[in-house]
Amino acid sequence: MSYVADPSASDGEFNRDTDYITTRITADGRDGYAVEPGRYRLVVARACPWANRTIIVRRLLGLEDAISIGFCGPTHDERSWTFDLDPDGRDPVLGIHFLRDAYNKRIPDYPKGVTVPAIVDIPTGEVVTNDFAQITLDFSTEWTAYHRDGAPQLYPDPLRDEIDEVAQRIYTEVNNGVYRCGFAGSQQAYEKAYDRLFTALDWLSERLENQRYLVGDTITEADVRLFTTLARFDPVYHGHFKTNRSKLSEMPVLWAYARDLFQTPGFGDTTDFVQIKQHYYLVHTDINPTGVVPKGPDLSNWLSPHGREALGGRPFGDGTAPGPTREGERVPEAHSAG
Amino acid sequence: MSYVADPSASDGEFNRDTDYITTRITADGRDGYAVEPGRYRLVVARACPWANRTIIVRRLLGLEDAISIGFCGPTHDERSWTFDLDPDGRDPVLGIHFLRDAYNKRIPDYPKGVTVPAIVDIPTGEVVTNDFAQITLDFSTEWTAYHRDGAPQLYPDPLRDEIDEVAQRIYTEVNNGVYRCGFAGSQQAYEKAYDRLFTALDWLSERLENQRYLVGDTITEADVRLFTTLARFDPVYHGHFKTNRSKLSEMPVLWAYARDLFQTPGFGDTTDFVQIKQHYYLVHTDINPTGVVPKGPDLSNWLSPHGREALGGRPFGDGTAPGPTREGERVPEAHSAG
Repeated sequence: MSYVADPSASDGEFNRDTDYITTRITADGRDGYAVEPGRYRLVVARACPWANRTIIVRRLLGLEDAISIGFCGPTHDERSWTFDLDPDGRDPVLGIHFLRDAYNKRIPDYPKGVTVPAIVDIPTGEVVTNDFAQITLDFSTEWTAYHRDGAPQLYPDPLRDEIDEVAQRIYTEVNNGVYRCGFAGSQQAYEKAYDRLFTALDWLSERLENQRYLVGDTITEADVRLFTTLARFDPVYHGHFKTNRSKLSEMPVLWAYARDLFQTPGFGDTTDFVQIKQHYYLVHTDINPTGVVPKGPDLSNWLSPHGREALGGRPFGDGTAPGPTREGERVPEAHSAG
Repeated sequence: MSYVADPSASDGEFNRDTDYITTRITADGRDGYAVEPGRYRLVVARACPWANRTIIVRRLLGLEDAISIGFCGPTHDERSWTFDLDPDGRDPVLGIHFLRDAYNKRIPDYPKGVTVPAIVDIPTGEVVTNDFAQITLDFSTEWTAYHRDGAPQLYPDPLRDEIDEVAQRIYTEVNNGVYRCGFAGSQQAYEKAYDRLFTALDWLSERLENQRYLVGDTITEADVRLFTTLARFDPVYHGHFKTNRSKLSEMPVLWAYARDLFQTPGFGDTTDFVQIKQHYYLVHTDINPTGVVPKGPDLSNWLSPHGREALGGRPFGDGTAPGPTREGERVPEAHSAG
C-alpha cells in the first residue's frame, strides 16, 4: 500500500485513502475475470504489511502454481512501487519497471494511489484489483479448486461473522492505528491515536490470554491480518511511528502469540525485516528526513520458545502445514530473525 | 548543553564542540572567582543531561544555600536557552530572559554555543564558566567548606585516577555516544556509532554485574555521569537517536543499576521525564520535523525493586543521604516516574 495524509482533516488525524479498484476474480467470472491458473500475477512488496498478508495466504493455501508472484523493492519515490529488485529493473513476466504502468493500462492516468498488493491480468497487463482486504478472502473462497492438499480453512463459513468482526476492529484500531500515530499532524491527534491503539492491544492481549488464536482454535484470516502489523511493531512502529507505550516484546501475551505464528510455516518465512525497515525509514522522508535506518532491534528473540502449545489449538485444523518456500521466493537468511 | 554537528566532518560523524569557558571558581580564587556563598547562580535546564549532573551533585553535597539555582525551560530556538518557565520569563535573580545575555556580558558577541550548565557571577551578571565536566568536580573539591554534614565523597582522592579513567570512557562512548548515533550524517557513521555505543554498554554491564557502583563501593562522580544518560535512554535516545539494539529496560544489569540510583535521593528526584522528552523532540526539528512528542514509554517500572542491595555497597559511604528536595526546586509529581 502507499499512504496519504488527508489535508482536509483539520485536527491533524491521518485518514487512509480507501478508494480501491474493487473488481473481483471469482470462480464464476462475474466481474469479467475468472479464476484461471497462470493468468494472474500477484504483485507485492515484502515490506508492506497489507501485501505481506497476501504472500502468507497464497503460501498457506498452496496457490504458488496457480498465481505467480512479482516482488517490488522496499523503497520508492513519489512515483510509487517499482520492480527495482529484478536484474534489469523489470518484472520478468509483466516487463514493466513502474507498477504504475499496469494501473494506467487499466485506467488511463490512474488518479488514485498506486498500491501493493495488486493483481495483474498477465495477457492484458492491466491491474484487476488492489482491494487488499478482498484479495485474501477470494484466495480462500474463490480459488478453492487450486488449493493444495491439506490447505487450511482460513475463512471457514461458520466463523465468518466472528472473523469479520474481529478483523474490522483490528483494521481500524491496529493495522491502521499504527499509521494514525505515525502520521498524526498534531500532538493532540497523536495522543488520541496512541490511546486508541493501546486500548485495542490491551483488548487483544486479554482475548489471547487463554486462547491460542483469535477465532476458533485454528489459524484464520484474522490471525494473518494481526500478524503482519505485530511483526513490524518493534522494528518500525515503536520508534518511527512513536507507538511506544511498550515494545511488543514487553507485552507478554501478544509477544508469545506473535512468536507462535512467526515460527509457523508461512509467517516468519515470509517476513523480511531488512526490507521492512528500509521501506518505512527511507520512504517517509517527512518523518525521517535523515534517511538513517536503525540497526536495532535485536530480533533473534523471535525464535525463542513461546509456550503457546499449552493452550491447545490446531494451527492448520484438519489440514497440514505448507512445505518449504519455493526457490526464488525465499527471504534471504540475513533478512530474517536470528 | 546545546549541540552542533560538525559540517567539516566528511564522513557524517557528529563531533561535539568542546570549546568552553574554563574559568574556575576555587577556594583560593586564583582565576579571580573565589568560592563565596550567595555569590553565584547555577543555571541549568532539567532536560539536559550535562546540567542534570550539576543538579544532582549540588543536592548530594548540600550546596543549596551556598549556590542558588535558576531553571531554563526545556525547549528553545536557535537563540538557545531562556528562562521561559519563570512567571515573567525572567530569572528572578539575574533579571534576564535569554541566558545568552549573561554570556555576552562576559564576552561581547560570544561566538560559541550558549550552553547549560553555566555558573553566573550574580554581582556582575557574567558567566564564569560553562565547563560542565569541571563544575561538578569543583563542587566536590573547592566548595568543601560549604558541604552539608554527611555529604558524600563523590571524588575521593585515592579513587580519582580510576574515576577519571572510567568517566572518560563513559564520556566519549556513552554520554556523547548517544548523540553520535542521533546526529550521524550518514548510514555508515550511524552504524559505526551504534556499534561503539553498545560495545561500551556491554562493558558497563559486565563491570556492574557483581559491583554495585562503578568505582569503589560508594556512589561517585562516575555514577552521576552515567546515570543522566541512562535516565534518558528509553524515553528519548532509544527512538529519537535510534540507539535501539535494546531498551535500557532490556539490559538487566544496567537497568537494575539505573533503578538503584534513581531510587536514591538526589537522582530520581531531580529527573524530569516530561521536560526531557519535550527538549529533545521539540528542539531537534532536523530529526523530528513534526514536533510530536511520544507519549510513551511507561516509566512506572523505574520504581520497581532492583535487588542491588545484595551486592553490598554503601551509597553515601561514611556520609548520609540528603534530606528532602527544597521547596521550589522539586520536580512536579506528574513529571516523574509512576
